[in-house]
Amino acid sequence: MKIETKIKNFRKPLYLESGRILEPYDIAYTTYGELNSNQDNVILITHALTGSHKPVKEKDSDIFNHGWWDTIIGDGKSIDTEKYFVIATNVVGSIFGSTSPISPINPLNPSEKSLYRFRFPVITIKDMVKAQHILIQSLGIRKVKAIIGGSMGGMQALQFGVDYPLFAEIIIPIASTSATQPWMIAFNKVTQEAIKRDPKFLDGNYNLDEVRKNGLDGLAIGRMAGHISFLSHQSMKKKFGRRYLKDDGFYDINGRFQVDSYLDYNGDKFSKQFDPLSYLYLTKAIDIFDLSNGFDSLEDALSNFKAKLILISFSGDLLFLSEESKTVFDAMKNIGKESLVEHFDINSNYGHDAFLIEFDKFKHIIEKELS
Amino acid sequence: MKIETKIKNFRKPLYLESGRILEPYDIAYTTYGELNSNQDNVILITHALTGSHKPVKEKDSDIFNHGWWDTIIGDGKSIDTEKYFVIATNVVGSIFGSTSPISPINPLNPSEKSLYRFRFPVITIKDMVKAQHILIQSLGIRKVKAIIGGSMGGMQALQFGVDYPLFAEIIIPIASTSATQPWMIAFNKVTQEAIKRDPKFLDGNYNLDEVRKNGLDGLAIGRMAGHISFLSHQSMKKKFGRRYLKDDGFYDINGRFQVDSYLDYNGDKFSKQFDPLSYLYLTKAIDIFDLSNGFDSLEDALSNFKAKLILISFSGDLLFLSEESKTVFDAMKNIGKESLVEHFDINSNYGHDAFLIEFDKFKHIIEKELS
Repeated sequence: MKIETKIKNFRKPLYLESGRILEPYDIAYTTYGELNSNQDNVILITHALTGSHKPVKEKDSDIFNHGWWDTIIGDGKSIDTEKYFVIATNVVGSIFGSTSPISPINPLNPSEKSLYRFRFPVITIKDMVKAQHILIQSLGIRKVKAIIGGSMGGMQALQFGVDYPLFAEIIIPIASTSATQPWMIAFNKVTQEAIKRDPKFLDGNYNLDEVRKNGLDGLAIGRMAGHISFLSHQSMKKKFGRRYLKDDGFYDINGRFQVDSYLDYNGDKFSKQFDPLSYLYLTKAIDIFDLSNGFDSLEDALSNFKAKLILISFSGDLLFLSEESKTVFDAMKNIGKESLVEHFDINSNYGHDAFLIEFDKFKHIIEKELS
Repeated sequence: MKIETKIKNFRKPLYLESGRILEPYDIAYTTYGELNSNQDNVILITHALTGSHKPVKEKDSDIFNHGWWDTIIGDGKSIDTEKYFVIATNVVGSIFGSTSPISPINPLNPSEKSLYRFRFPVITIKDMVKAQHILIQSLGIRKVKAIIGGSMGGMQALQFGVDYPLFAEIIIPIASTSATQPWMIAFNKVTQEAIKRDPKFLDGNYNLDEVRKNGLDGLAIGRMAGHISFLSHQSMKKKFGRRYLKDDGFYDINGRFQVDSYLDYNGDKFSKQFDPLSYLYLTKAIDIFDLSNGFDSLEDALSNFKAKLILISFSGDLLFLSEESKTVFDAMKNIGKESLVEHFDINSNYGHDAFLIEFDKFKHIIEKELS
């Protein structure tokens, strides 16, 4: 499989939903396979909060969190790169190559002092989608076969269908929602406050090298809360039970269960690999996401939808409930688009993380749509 | 209704489950109503994590979190103080008058430097129960009619039934469990880490006056996570929806939804009213709680149970699932004690907080048992 990763620089301004402008900006992206001569074999993969433009594992690659959909993207896999030209981009605001809050305002003068930090504009899901649309057009591609993404990636997929109705034939949002609910906003809030109140965050003026080396406690703590929201009672029970660390005293105030140790390890690791400001901006985008922003209703927003919409949810997902996908399904039905929409609610105990784990339970749906 | 609050000093050592000793120790308690001549009208109320020995509202009282069961305790109420002598104690380890991590090791020399802090021993639910049993015996009372408590209070009620089988006639644990599950341990972990990693916590040597005045960010952040666990998707949706603060900009990175504002307010308020070390010790007690500790199984632990056991759970409780009460019910059945046990699963969207809100849905169960 041919894999190419590039960073494309855009010199024209990106007009944001907020009224602000991002100029210039970069988008990092990876392509898998080859574009056919008809240019009708393109699949766009949109990533989740801490995902990247690297859904496929690469040899010797050390990029954070790459390979998250390796099981279903590749030669002969569900999203078959022998047949399809797969594009994955890093969203604007994320730190893996696209322009983010820790990018220099003026790329010609990339010093620490010239970084955006809190001068970075709020980016919305709509903005992420707009930037990706510009990128793909710039590659000479007018249309894509499908847009597939989980969680925040599912929000982007839905937004594509509303904003560019003729751009994609099939849209597959997985474990996602049409409007972020307070339960999720509250989880994000915990992380946002943990970051902002960390004295080392220095109101966004933290030392980048120091944070990359030692992490930021606030981000680590917030990530621990995040992990709870990604899991479920059942998956935690199965994974950890009440098992206690062998070396820790049961009556030691600092003694730990395995679940504690898991959260420590993953929280601390994450806080060295991601970025606090980017986390604030991306969770802000998630918080304010509502497909019906600027419309009278969800039905109104979906009235222009022309793509086939395949909604996939998981019964045990506590972050984006099955009923949130059902809401989109019902709205499509209400406006007479039942022939365009299907909803598959997958029985799973893995919580929100199911979209990164339970491939055997949903890949056949993707395969069928792409066949 | 006659209300009396006292602090009783115990000079004999309290032998703890850990093998350590607490000596001397105090227990704060409140009594409502009057003990009858047969001494057979006593009801013990056990409190939750941040509760107190003040479940009933009092005029001009400014104690934190008092009056939490005011709706059901009082003259003519479900737990009728015209008929019953109600006792509520502050658990050992909590800060409202009983001995806690911020008590002086030597009460004769109550200086800042002589406070326990991390020298305080880990207290278990079993220890809390033992101390309360000693207190009640010291009042000349040998038996109680009922023990009723929610959440951590329910753990105490269950533990009473195992450790002192002839002490209570009826035991009513509400929204509780027989063994804390990893989902809850993980939530506690977030708070514990947020506290311990707060630089102002100073490894437990924080300035008490300063923390009471300004709060501790770590405790505030942890409490925000706690609030999520107390609520439910539905209750948050109903309470907050996606309503945004009027004065905040929608595209302002620091702009807030109402749910954010709620968490800020309650987190900060709580962090000035509770104590970080006490929170660590009480959540530790919750984490390591397992009725079957020291037994072969839950059934084995319950084999001595002689009281009537009335389990109440709430369908929307995400902290202690209904099935956790069902587990206790099933265990009792498995050992032939079905005549002793009943389980009421109350339909509610209020999450764990239902035991502090949905009185109309469960008070009739208590009334029937006490009639």
